[in-house]
Amino acid sequence: MQQLLDTAEKIRTMEIRGAGRIAAAAARALRDYVEMLETSSFEEFVAKVEKAKSILIETRPTAVSLPNAVMLAGSYDAETVEEARSQILDNATEFIQNADNALDNIGEIGAKRLRDGDTVMTHCNSHAALAIIKTAHNQGKRIKVYATESRPRRQGFITIKELSDAGIDTTLIVDSAVRHTMKNVDTVIVGADSITVNGALVNKIGTSQLALAAHEARVNFISAAETYKFSPSTLFGDLVEIEERDPEEVISKDKLGDMPDVKISNPAFDVTPSEYIDLIVTEAGAFPPEMAYVIIKEHLGWELEKMG
Amino acid sequence: MQQLLDTAEKIRTMEIRGAGRIAAAAARALRDYVEMLETSSFEEFVAKVEKAKSILIETRPTAVSLPNAVMLAGSYDAETVEEARSQILDNATEFIQNADNALDNIGEIGAKRLRDGDTVMTHCNSHAALAIIKTAHNQGKRIKVYATESRPRRQGFITIKELSDAGIDTTLIVDSAVRHTMKNVDTVIVGADSITVNGALVNKIGTSQLALAAHEARVNFISAAETYKFSPSTLFGDLVEIEERDPEEVISKDKLGDMPDVKISNPAFDVTPSEYIDLIVTEAGAFPPEMAYVIIKEHLGWELEKMG
Amino acid sequence: MQQLLDTAEKIRTMEIRGAGRIAAAAARALRDYVEMLETSSFEEFVAKVEKAKSILIETRPTAVSLPNAVMLAGSYDAETVEEARSQILDNATEFIQNADNALDNIGEIGAKRLRDGDTVMTHCNSHAALAIIKTAHNQGKRIKVYATESRPRRQGFITIKELSDAGIDTTLIVDSAVRHTMKNVDTVIVGADSITVNGALVNKIGTSQLALAAHEARVNFISAAETYKFSPSTLFGDLVEIEERDPEEVISKDKLGDMPDVKISNPAFDVTPSEYIDLIVTEAGAFPPEMAYVIIKEHLGWELEKMG
Amino acid sequence: MQQLLDTAEKIRTMEIRGAGRIAAAAARALRDYVEMLETSSFEEFVAKVEKAKSILIETRPTAVSLPNAVMLAGSYDAETVEEARSQILDNATEFIQNADNALDNIGEIGAKRLRDGDTVMTHCNSHAALAIIKTAHNQGKRIKVYATESRPRRQGFITIKELSDAGIDTTLIVDSAVRHTMKNVDTVIVGADSITVNGALVNKIGTSQLALAAHEARVNFISAAETYKFSPSTLFGDLVEIEERDPEEVISKDKLGDMPDVKISNPAFDVTPSEYIDLIVTEAGAFPPEMAYVIIKEHLGWELEKMG
Amino acid sequence: MQQLLDTAEKIRTMEIRGAGRIAAAAARALRDYVEMLETSSFEEFVAKVEKAKSILIETRPTAVSLPNAVMLAGSYDAETVEEARSQILDNATEFIQNADNALDNIGEIGAKRLRDGDTVMTHCNSHAALAIIKTAHNQGKRIKVYATESRPRRQGFITIKELSDAGIDTTLIVDSAVRHTMKNVDTVIVGADSITVNGALVNKIGTSQLALAAHEARVNFISAAETYKFSPSTLFGDLVEIEERDPEEVISKDKLGDMPDVKISNPAFDVTPSEYIDLIVTEAGAFPPEMAYVIIKEHLGWELEKMG
Amino acid sequence: MQQLLDTAEKIRTMEIRGAGRIAAAAARALRDYVEMLETSSFEEFVAKVEKAKSILIETRPTAVSLPNAVMLAGSYDAETVEEARSQILDNATEFIQNADNALDNIGEIGAKRLRDGDTVMTHCNSHAALAIIKTAHNQGKRIKVYATESRPRRQGFITIKELSDAGIDTTLIVDSAVRHTMKNVDTVIVGADSITVNGALVNKIGTSQLALAAHEARVNFISAAETYKFSPSTLFGDLVEIEERDPEEVISKDKLGDMPDVKISNPAFDVTPSEYIDLIVTEAGAFPPEMAYVIIKEHLGWELEKMG
Repeated sequence: MQQLLDTAEKIRTMEIRGAGRIAAAAARALRDYVEMLETSSFEEFVAKVEKAKSILIETRPTAVSLPNAVMLAGSYDAETVEEARSQILDNATEFIQNADNALDNIGEIGAKRLRDGDTVMTHCNSHAALAIIKTAHNQGKRIKVYATESRPRRQGFITIKELSDAGIDTTLIVDSAVRHTMKNVDTVIVGADSITVNGALVNKIGTSQLALAAHEARVNFISAAETYKFSPSTLFGDLVEIEERDPEEVISKDKLGDMPDVKISNPAFDVTPSEYIDLIVTEAGAFPPEMAYVIIKEHLGWELEKMG
Repeated sequence: MQQLLDTAEKIRTMEIRGAGRIAAAAARALRDYVEMLETSSFEEFVAKVEKAKSILIETRPTAVSLPNAVMLAGSYDAETVEEARSQILDNATEFIQNADNALDNIGEIGAKRLRDGDTVMTHCNSHAALAIIKTAHNQGKRIKVYATESRPRRQGFITIKELSDAGIDTTLIVDSAVRHTMKNVDTVIVGADSITVNGALVNKIGTSQLALAAHEARVNFISAAETYKFSPSTLFGDLVEIEERDPEEVISKDKLGDMPDVKISNPAFDVTPSEYIDLIVTEAGAFPPEMAYVIIKEHLGWELEKMG
Repeated sequence: MQQLLDTAEKIRTMEIRGAGRIAAAAARALRDYVEMLETSSFEEFVAKVEKAKSILIETRPTAVSLPNAVMLAGSYDAETVEEARSQILDNATEFIQNADNALDNIGEIGAKRLRDGDTVMTHCNSHAALAIIKTAHNQGKRIKVYATESRPRRQGFITIKELSDAGIDTTLIVDSAVRHTMKNVDTVIVGADSITVNGALVNKIGTSQLALAAHEARVNFISAAETYKFSPSTLFGDLVEIEERDPEEVISKDKLGDMPDVKISNPAFDVTPSEYIDLIVTEAGAFPPEMAYVIIKEHLGWELEKMG
Repeated sequence: MQQLLDTAEKIRTMEIRGAGRIAAAAARALRDYVEMLETSSFEEFVAKVEKAKSILIETRPTAVSLPNAVMLAGSYDAETVEEARSQILDNATEFIQNADNALDNIGEIGAKRLRDGDTVMTHCNSHAALAIIKTAHNQGKRIKVYATESRPRRQGFITIKELSDAGIDTTLIVDSAVRHTMKNVDTVIVGADSITVNGALVNKIGTSQLALAAHEARVNFISAAETYKFSPSTLFGDLVEIEERDPEEVISKDKLGDMPDVKISNPAFDVTPSEYIDLIVTEAGAFPPEMAYVIIKEHLGWELEKMG
Repeated sequence: MQQLLDTAEKIRTMEIRGAGRIAAAAARALRDYVEMLETSSFEEFVAKVEKAKSILIETRPTAVSLPNAVMLAGSYDAETVEEARSQILDNATEFIQNADNALDNIGEIGAKRLRDGDTVMTHCNSHAALAIIKTAHNQGKRIKVYATESRPRRQGFITIKELSDAGIDTTLIVDSAVRHTMKNVDTVIVGADSITVNGALVNKIGTSQLALAAHEARVNFISAAETYKFSPSTLFGDLVEIEERDPEEVISKDKLGDMPDVKISNPAFDVTPSEYIDLIVTEAGAFPPEMAYVIIKEHLGWELEKMG
Repeated sequence: MQQLLDTAEKIRTMEIRGAGRIAAAAARALRDYVEMLETSSFEEFVAKVEKAKSILIETRPTAVSLPNAVMLAGSYDAETVEEARSQILDNATEFIQNADNALDNIGEIGAKRLRDGDTVMTHCNSHAALAIIKTAHNQGKRIKVYATESRPRRQGFITIKELSDAGIDTTLIVDSAVRHTMKNVDTVIVGADSITVNGALVNKIGTSQLALAAHEARVNFISAAETYKFSPSTLFGDLVEIEERDPEEVISKDKLGDMPDVKISNPAFDVTPSEYIDLIVTEAGAFPPEMAYVIIKEHLGWELEKMG
């Protein structure tokens, strides 16, 4: 249990962060816990496993990949301890493996949507989005990339470093230059924090601005999203809460000190409606956003019955 | 002449900057030069005045307020030195006075468009836009303002200081949060660098993104622009050139040093099409953008015949 | 059989009306008929049950909830009378129970889409739509409602009475004021008469005007619809017929008597295209309208094979 | 003076109503007053005339045709009593004559936009809109009309009577059926209460809903408006105030008595943005709405200098 | 094998052409080949069948109906030669029968979407689209058709001949007159070359122009498409390649000889995005385009696992 | 008079055609007629000149350039024969000269809107549109052109010959390929047959399809139009009639002989609404389409008073 608590703590303190890493770490923690769990009473086993799941899920209740990982990895339909343990070990291992492979598959599928000579715009720093760009580049296609600075945390600087290291022709722009630059772009590719049942994309603040400008300019807009980014609970009406982050990310306290009437609003995410999204590239295929429910049912279906 | 050359130099080096201040300085320089000009030959007078105008205009050829100021201030229709001198002194004085009054009139007219309780979004740091907001505030209307950071130069910090000093309830956001925040806004008010004959607005990079998001959300979008911001030469087909500024405004050389494949694109302005602009508030009234030609003809008409 | 004929008659004469009540009454009539049916011949049983179904379905052929109820309640896959009877009793009971629970579930799921302080607009008088509003109100959220008069029959007067009785802050407007008022609204919630395979909503005349105005103003538009409101036959091309109702609902014969060139057009319903609908809240979850076929298949699937 | 006060009183109590009739009555009252005015002092003349104008204008400050009529009819540029009197008598007579002719000219110009076999939709009861329809009908074109009921005051009943008397094929619909019916319509023709400098149309509540539905269905939308309906003061930023009318027009106090939480909102007008208006037919020609400023300047220009 | 090679050759040389005929011919060739295949070794059987499939599929790699036909007809899940042979014979026969019936079903389903008196526009020469029109005509509905010339190959001439032979009121227009004529049209019906997973329609050059003009004019746009026109491989990111055809179809070499700077671009197909498509009528029902994945899974599902 | 009748006849038989050539020929014929006219009676002079004007105008009543030319060339404000003659000679000569210079000015102004490397699409064969393209090419800008075939008369073949002779990189496409090709285009440039008071463009059939596709793809759309192409009579409500041309242009009688149910529709022009037009380039400057009335008033103003 201590190991599981440690992992939970690391997720809570954001030592482990990023939807994919959180998901894998939680699945591993659960697997290891179940593997070690010493009991011959099925009731006790069930109780302890459910307790472990709850601990993990509650560390960061707004991250959709976390409950998805825990529920998929921890799923079983058994009547003895050993059957249940064996199923969980299998399911957890499969989940971890799938998560490992997901980026490769997304890169492979998404890269087919890029043609030689295409210019891509990306926002923030998404492993899945970069997997597509790098795969296309590695296939010998000449790809140019515009990367946004992504204020306030400037994850764009990490992105241009990664693209530069991969030898890809990259141009950095400020977030205000998105619409002005869009006329030079063929495809926008971003990641996903979560995707709702009606195909809306929750992602880093500014994403919906890229989507709106792409829609206006008839530029393709693709979100690269592992299936565990889809949110089953939105099927039952849950709204996605937008986290409000520390004002100091935007302006330091020093400067603010002498402006008593000035507040800071620093939302972490925004919501892009499905009508601005052309395609969601998952490891299981490329879908229009309206298909979100079908993806949830096929890939995260266990949850629907329990939640209904 | 030395004074005029000094002023020209200050404009060139951006010691004097901002479309309004440039216009007033050039008109003053021309007035003073003409006042002092010692000659009894009308031909010589004409030649020297035209020379002086050219010097001023050529210091910053892309700033539309400069040729407008010089041509309006330096206009005359005479056949003797004294007649011409007197007309120029009158015209220059009138131009300077009008420019002084323009902000007040814009504030007055624009403030009528704001209702008690309205929330305004503004971008960058525009005297004319702030004049409207402050006038409404001074009339006792409760106005809330969202101000964008306005990367790369962060003129938003100047704006929030001014608004704070005026006691206006202000919230700072990063440029990426414009669309997300727009749902709380009643009216967007920005300034203008120049306005073309077909009603397009050239203004600080990011302006067109506010306009697009406002249009999407059915929020009013107002540009506050003195009449000398309108560009007569666009009537004859001239395109507005977008200045590309120093990359170091976006990212320092240090960071860029180790990324040979990374370039910076740092456009100073973008272009907002007339269909996203509800109203242009000038000191001579509030017009829809399609009226740009009529404004040019009525207020800058001298130029049309000379340019045709 | 007499009871079943009585129910059929009450449906025909609109003594029983409203899509939900019709559905439940028909399911009950069929269950009671099958329960009493005395025969040991399976052939006779089948023939009589099919006859009973036809009688019910044909009483109001345009009401989509009726055939859905009869077919779902009367479904069986058996080879003996008792097996078939038992299945029908189970299915009918389940259908009735689900219909009873549907409003609660819709209220529960839909209420999650409303935030504290939201303003809702509704049209006509829909149990499902009001269930959502009341549930949110009962959860302690401060909800304001605009209710339309809903000419010609003014069902809006029933709606404001219900909302008033529930203690909800309500404002009545005429139907012409919908677009003018929409700027104050966060979410439109209406019911459904039926929903087609391509996600179009057939509902009380005027509904599509709310939807259009909501779309223009970027206001959420939700239809609250039990799954038995979805129309399987539209999958096979059937068009929804719009009932033309009595002119006297619009203007009395007295007034019309002296205007020989004047006709009245009084359509009962209109059609809202899926692009104006953000979400359909059913008792089985909240879906985008494009998912209509999947809902039909999962919840009314029996019919597809028979109709194909 | 008593006559003028009587007229002012009739306008205030709405004994005289309708933008056209108000304008003509005010012009006549001013003309008669000036004709009778006994004084030889120019100063006294000026003071009394300005006083008379103020009285008339202030009777209904929100009706744009009233100040337009008074200012146009009462305009003079003179230095003696007799010169001024003579100019006012001429101007007032000309204004009254023009107002008389305006409906005919609007009918003539607008009728050219209708083709044989066209179907028109109209709202409320506008003399100018009906002038167009009747002129086309009298030219032998077969015109069909859909007239809306126009709740709450049901002016549609007056409209269908007028059209019926003229022998025009007319169909009455409730306001909720506007979008549903629009697919059968070729052109929408409505009147105007006032038109702003940026081409927005202020007219009877519901007008903007016809305009939105016409825009969606690519149906022509025409406003028939005498030039004195254009509002010069909007050039200087004035917003049009929307009058809130008596709740009893919507629902009687009896019914409301037992619903303490229910309010009524009964706005008299709504605002149609210029983008939904194809053409404004005035007595001086047919213009796109963006031309409003030019119409104001050419036909109501006297006012601009005084207001600026 | 020779027969199969002959069929492959006829497909390659376009002696057999049209997506439907190609599909049926390939299924027949495979069935006949498997029927005759003499071997008792299951391994040999498998190898030869796979080889035969590959030969057929590779004859025209861009025609989506060909691999669909081969994979559906040649599908088996067996462990002995005779089991596999029997399954393939069954599957191939079923595929051929379904393809034969598909046009009738499409005609039947699609005809329900046409009302008496409707005017249809069609493009190029599609059996499925004409099946709908003729079925509606045979049901006694008065249907008028506008047929486009469909340059460069003028398949419109074949279409008007077929419609004329069927006694249907037909009007021929040039391709440039599509938008001008659209105002007279109720429904556009075209065929399909292929349909992608996100509901885009690949069809004869010019199709997307009809769709755009129909969308603008709020005219229904229907694609008539057998389920084997849907492209499973697009689920995995494949882009549809647009074939560039012989310049001589557009202008003869004679004329081109003396214009060295002139090139010809002659694309065979264009892509219509799903947002311009109201309905896809297949033999299995009428779906919105967003349902493409569900159709692929239900009707072509065998392929997904193999491709993934 | 015989000369004038000859010219009229040549215009009627289309020996002289093209809006520009017709205008110049009519102005010349009128000038020559007036020059020769022998009479000393002013009444006779007036009567004969008006008669001559009527003859010219009535030869092709739908061509807007013809009455514009005759009225501008034949304008006078005099009281003696010699004064009037002298004014007409001056006005006619000025009109002819302006018409000669118009193409050069349009080329000059329009070429400024093209940047080095731009790709242009044009339709049919317009002198004014080609003047812009050639001027830009002659200025050393690398311009690529897509020219449409322009069925039925294939004026595109003339266009590609002219562009080829000028050494401009040109690609011919069929009219159906316009939308597909638009993604490669920066600016569409077409001519004008006439322009209405609300800024609509009447031009060769197919023009509105280019405009719609350009609008969808956010591509600039420019009409090149001499000021005499603007239609003053549309100010007074006149609708533009669309000429229906000979069916044989579309399909020969031979082919049609055996298709009794087939008709041909062959409209010569279509109408592009102002919202799809970015700029109208005239010899007097570049205007947004909403400015049409101002252009009419400034350049064709003589007519307004006479028509009113």
